Amino acid sequence: MAYKCDLNRMSDKIKTFSKFGDAGHGGITRYSLSPEAHMAREEFVKRMEAIGAKIECDDVACMYATIEGSDPNAKRIVLGSHVDSVKNGGNYDGILGVMTGMEVMETIVAEKIPHKHPITTMIWTNEEGSLYPPAMMVSGIICNDYIPEELRVNFKYENVMKSTPMDESEFANFGEALAATKFKGPKENRISPDKYCAMFETHLEQGPILEEAGNEVGAVQLVMGMFNYRVRFHGFTAHAGTFPMGKRHDALFAASTFLCEMHKRFDELNKGQEPEFVYTTGEIYVHPCIHTCIPDEAEFSLDVRHPDPELRKKVMGILKDMAKEEWCKCACEIEEQWVRDTVYFDKNLVRFVEESMEESGMKWQKILSGAGHDAQFCAYMLPTTMIFTRTKDGLSHCEPEFVSDEDCTAGATAALGAVLKADQFYE
Amino acid sequence: MAYKCDLNRMSDKIKTFSKFGDAGHGGITRYSLSPEAHMAREEFVKRMEAIGAKIECDDVACMYATIEGSDPNAKRIVLGSHVDSVKNGGNYDGILGVMTGMEVMETIVAEKIPHKHPITTMIWTNEEGSLYPPAMMVSGIICNDYIPEELRVNFKYENVMKSTPMDESEFANFGEALAATKFKGPKENRISPDKYCAMFETHLEQGPILEEAGNEVGAVQLVMGMFNYRVRFHGFTAHAGTFPMGKRHDALFAASTFLCEMHKRFDELNKGQEPEFVYTTGEIYVHPCIHTCIPDEAEFSLDVRHPDPELRKKVMGILKDMAKEEWCKCACEIEEQWVRDTVYFDKNLVRFVEESMEESGMKWQKILSGAGHDAQFCAYMLPTTMIFTRTKDGLSHCEPEFVSDEDCTAGATAALGAVLKADQFYE
Repeated sequence: MAYKCDLNRMSDKIKTFSKFGDAGHGGITRYSLSPEAHMAREEFVKRMEAIGAKIECDDVACMYATIEGSDPNAKRIVLGSHVDSVKNGGNYDGILGVMTGMEVMETIVAEKIPHKHPITTMIWTNEEGSLYPPAMMVSGIICNDYIPEELRVNFKYENVMKSTPMDESEFANFGEALAATKFKGPKENRISPDKYCAMFETHLEQGPILEEAGNEVGAVQLVMGMFNYRVRFHGFTAHAGTFPMGKRHDALFAASTFLCEMHKRFDELNKGQEPEFVYTTGEIYVHPCIHTCIPDEAEFSLDVRHPDPELRKKVMGILKDMAKEEWCKCACEIEEQWVRDTVYFDKNLVRFVEESMEESGMKWQKILSGAGHDAQFCAYMLPTTMIFTRTKDGLSHCEPEFVSDEDCTAGATAALGAVLKADQFYE
Repeated sequence: MAYKCDLNRMSDKIKTFSKFGDAGHGGITRYSLSPEAHMAREEFVKRMEAIGAKIECDDVACMYATIEGSDPNAKRIVLGSHVDSVKNGGNYDGILGVMTGMEVMETIVAEKIPHKHPITTMIWTNEEGSLYPPAMMVSGIICNDYIPEELRVNFKYENVMKSTPMDESEFANFGEALAATKFKGPKENRISPDKYCAMFETHLEQGPILEEAGNEVGAVQLVMGMFNYRVRFHGFTAHAGTFPMGKRHDALFAASTFLCEMHKRFDELNKGQEPEFVYTTGEIYVHPCIHTCIPDEAEFSLDVRHPDPELRKKVMGILKDMAKEEWCKCACEIEEQWVRDTVYFDKNLVRFVEESMEESGMKWQKILSGAGHDAQFCAYMLPTTMIFTRTKDGLSHCEPEFVSDEDCTAGATAALGAVLKADQFYE
């Protein structure tokens, strides 16, 4: 018989944590290491101490609440995510994974479920990077020796300590905010392979796939590889009123024409792909951006994600071919920003999650992650996997972001079962 | 026999005035009422006093240098333009019209050309509006009682005095900059129909039409009417990695698709039009403008210019029809920013300019102005017209902006002839 987490206890956590940073219209703003984030951390300590967990912090303000297992030599199994949000974000992104860990531990204690390994719930500091970029900053620091070389410099301790705030802050940079927090401890307390044997992160899907399929939860298989480019066009500017149409080299017209044609060629390649690749042009800028001037420069961002490196290569091939052409008499130039390989989650842990979902009788499916998470860096260091919960309308990073209390509890139940399987699997 | 202006004297003025605000790479930055603009005004005073002209200033820092004519009761004939530039602008836009007036008066004095009317060269304050918007600010103030009602509020004295600087300035607003300048006088000194009978503005074409036709100068017939709209698209945002392509409502894809289709439909209508209408999409913005987010909002500017109100109506009809459709599952909305009728220049003055060009044996043509100028507001108040000079590559509002000394002198000769014809025509 599968153990189940408690709906009422989960609902109470959701209600309570949603207050910390409440922006007054359904969502929260809870930047990392802000007073609001500290309130959430205090609540975490209070609730975890109430079940007899030991609280530890590391040098980058990650927090760990641990209950002992029956084997004093066993490594810890950890569940975790982050408590910080984007500006005007929702009540689930990040905190759901922390509440899930708490709920799993609370259930284990309440139901006196036997386990060999210590079980830990963890808060990763500054995942969103909303106030202090980059995103996934602290998992990047902690996993720095394990992540691919080309990513390392972005997350080098010395570099990210200098990260300056994007919004109002009483601190000049991330290092100062870190120096000021009371939730700090020795570097030895960091999550590491010598003390931890497995890590689970539960997160809302942030997409509409589970909802559409009528599934409560998803067993995440991997985080899709991606590439990110800037696509630029060079024309020349002239006066809106005095320059004949036929002689213009309009960089925005070029960018728009390219963008429409790119959609056509990409969609053609995507036909019949399972899964399809996703591509996004989220930013655009023109110069001089004056209504009476023909733009001489235009630039947009292109983000492409898919698990298969061969398909990503084909997509990149289309882009590179297109960039060789002239568009509306403008030269085109592309510049790679970053390329990231697909991160596959630990096969055993993925299987434990799937078995747990199945045995609990919930509606579930295999799913891929298009977004980045701390678990993705952690996966380079430790056996790691993720659980997704159904997300209303696929919305996230906004105030209407919503997961029902029932689905949050289902996610916790799935995590509990998987943790108990890992507890038996690992020495 | 037609009088001719002097190439060497004109060259000397061009060389001298190009120093005031010299940005070190061929062009100038000379904001209105800046120290650099004051240097140009000092030079104007020096040179005009040298030929015996009387210097006056009005309450909005416009300057007037006047030589008397033979009839003490005759109204003044004025030539003028502005001495301020855009940021990193060229050595001709504005100042050419002032140098032309000076050259005309210097020729009249040197050659002792008889004339009945007083002749004035005028500096219009703050035409570009680069530091203190809007453009054509001071002609808008001075002609406020005469310009169309819908424009008046933009140029109301009290309103524009509060205009705050777009760039670094020692003054908090235009009113303070005006209070600090020494080039100020009584309001009675303003150009007005009771003291002035005609106004001529010489300006570089800012387009490639004269150059391509092999003509030195153009007799400007009118300033094209125009309309300016914002075109907006409303979709919804979602995460770049987690949201399936088929369910996206991508506002930038919508804007790009609309923009390309608009080009197609507009170009179809433009086929065989003589002159063609010009249209420009100079600005674009998306929200939230993050590379990992599908844009939920996109907006671009649309500027359309043509002399014929019927054709402008047809163009607007296409726009309005297109806005009724849905684009890439995004709603479209258009908002009028302003609409301006065609301003026809005074028939007699236009004829005098054409006759003067013809009689001087220069290569000339009729031409239309797509850009706005102080002359356009002045035309509502006084008989007014403009002369255009050939512009290298059609470039303006940038450092490579260039008009040859010969073409500048041709413009001055054309202006001189027209002024002398006006001198005979008016009482």
